[in-house]
Amino acid sequence: MLHMPDKVTIVEVGPRDGLQNEKQPIPTEDKVAFINHLSETGLTRIEITSFVNPKWIPQLSDAVEVAREIKRKPGITYSALVPNMKGLERAVEAGVDEVAVFMSASQSHNKSNINKTIEETYPVLQEVVEAAGQKGIPVRGYVSTAFGCPYEGDVAPEQVIKVIDRLLEMGCQEISIGDTIGVANPRQVQAFLKLLLKQVDPERIALHFHDTRGTALANILAAMDMGITTFDSSLGGLGGCPYAPGASGNVATEDLVYMLNSMGVETAINLDKLAEIGAYMQRVTGKTLPARYLCSYLATQKD
Amino acid sequence: MLHMPDKVTIVEVGPRDGLQNEKQPIPTEDKVAFINHLSETGLTRIEITSFVNPKWIPQLSDAVEVAREIKRKPGITYSALVPNMKGLERAVEAGVDEVAVFMSASQSHNKSNINKTIEETYPVLQEVVEAAGQKGIPVRGYVSTAFGCPYEGDVAPEQVIKVIDRLLEMGCQEISIGDTIGVANPRQVQAFLKLLLKQVDPERIALHFHDTRGTALANILAAMDMGITTFDSSLGGLGGCPYAPGASGNVATEDLVYMLNSMGVETAINLDKLAEIGAYMQRVTGKTLPARYLCSYLATQKD
Repeated sequence: MLHMPDKVTIVEVGPRDGLQNEKQPIPTEDKVAFINHLSETGLTRIEITSFVNPKWIPQLSDAVEVAREIKRKPGITYSALVPNMKGLERAVEAGVDEVAVFMSASQSHNKSNINKTIEETYPVLQEVVEAAGQKGIPVRGYVSTAFGCPYEGDVAPEQVIKVIDRLLEMGCQEISIGDTIGVANPRQVQAFLKLLLKQVDPERIALHFHDTRGTALANILAAMDMGITTFDSSLGGLGGCPYAPGASGNVATEDLVYMLNSMGVETAINLDKLAEIGAYMQRVTGKTLPARYLCSYLATQKD
Repeated sequence: MLHMPDKVTIVEVGPRDGLQNEKQPIPTEDKVAFINHLSETGLTRIEITSFVNPKWIPQLSDAVEVAREIKRKPGITYSALVPNMKGLERAVEAGVDEVAVFMSASQSHNKSNINKTIEETYPVLQEVVEAAGQKGIPVRGYVSTAFGCPYEGDVAPEQVIKVIDRLLEMGCQEISIGDTIGVANPRQVQAFLKLLLKQVDPERIALHFHDTRGTALANILAAMDMGITTFDSSLGGLGGCPYAPGASGNVATEDLVYMLNSMGVETAINLDKLAEIGAYMQRVTGKTLPARYLCSYLATQKD
């Protein structure tokens, strides 16, 4: 039978990974309201924006305003993505609690996404991690395309683990391993973790699944069975990867919390509040969001 | 680590459980084409229609025509739902290979769905099972609301097992246990199966999950871990329960086959062919179907 943890931590990435993939811009005040609502659900970690060059991701060009205008709730870590020193400086000025650096496990996705080879990326991130460390700001490291690459197909687990090792050596406190294009399956997840956890503490690992082919919750179940207790998700299932053709959103926070809460795995997150924010974000984006739970919640409300 | 079977059998229920929930009627020739396409995918079991009174489910009032007009492919079992002796007679006349009887594990859903108490239902089904047996036609028994009832909430596992036992005693060769409103979670599925499999051979059990809250594939993973190897699914995620408020479709065949094929669990089903049928059924129904794999497949085709 499956091993289940007592407690799981969810990192809400909707305001960043979700909104960076919305085609039409979302007004800053709606982003701020979105994050303020999320702060009232019981979530303890929220990734609020990205301090990348606005030329790359114009959707998040208001990163400083968002970080300054949200209402900070004690006990919640508000983090943001930073690609380099300039991004770190802006993030620090805006007062984020944690930053995240990112790269890909596959060479061609890394080149396409950040215009550098994997080897060229390490020193850029190292500088950021060290500078953040000097300011006492913890750093998360994202490793994309860990379970498959849109250009290369399969990615060798050994190659992924090499990148993870380098990011940990640099001083990243946690690594979030991404199934960027949503191709992972539960058996692959377990085989990968079996290898990884021989040398890395499961407490330092988060998994970041996209639900492109519907397998995200099954993958999370498989990962919990191996001892992982931190997962990224996105309210409503917002988000995706703009450089990965056909890759739809992150696993929906509502669906994940429904599964965990109903299994008695503690999240301390209020599901009804999440669903109400999903309804709000459907109005803001003008779209039907992919979260399954949200759809069933709204159908029930209509009766 | 998870236990995975070498091989899984999928029972495609889209033409019945899916189409009975489509609001506008689907022309008979489109249903026939749908089933004929499904016959070319590698599926070995297809539930094609329901011989209930057309007053109850007008969507399937052409059951006889559908059963007569489809092209039967050797090696495929074509089955249909029958509520009573009259339904059985029509099904036999139309030449189905297998029939399925149905009832609920919860009293109020059974009353609402078939207008009888659970005790009143047994003799009606018994007569059907015996008559089918005399004609050499195998009978599947469906048990609905096994993991939760829209009227009663929780349903005691002991109560579900009592109904399963009665249907097996009657002579049903297989029982399909339904999460009619899509509330089940993997821990619940494993706890239930642990109890059930003390007395029933896993080969005689199929599980029928709806993906209302996104947990269907995780539930299937949990069930495979316990030794179950037969699952119902619906092409495109068509279907639902008209008497269960907020209950959306069956787990999508594409999503299930993607997960199984990618894990190396043999299904002998061609995923691209399934996705093409999904695209066809989107045109027939005029709707975006909920299957996650279908959406990613269509996005890839566009590039």
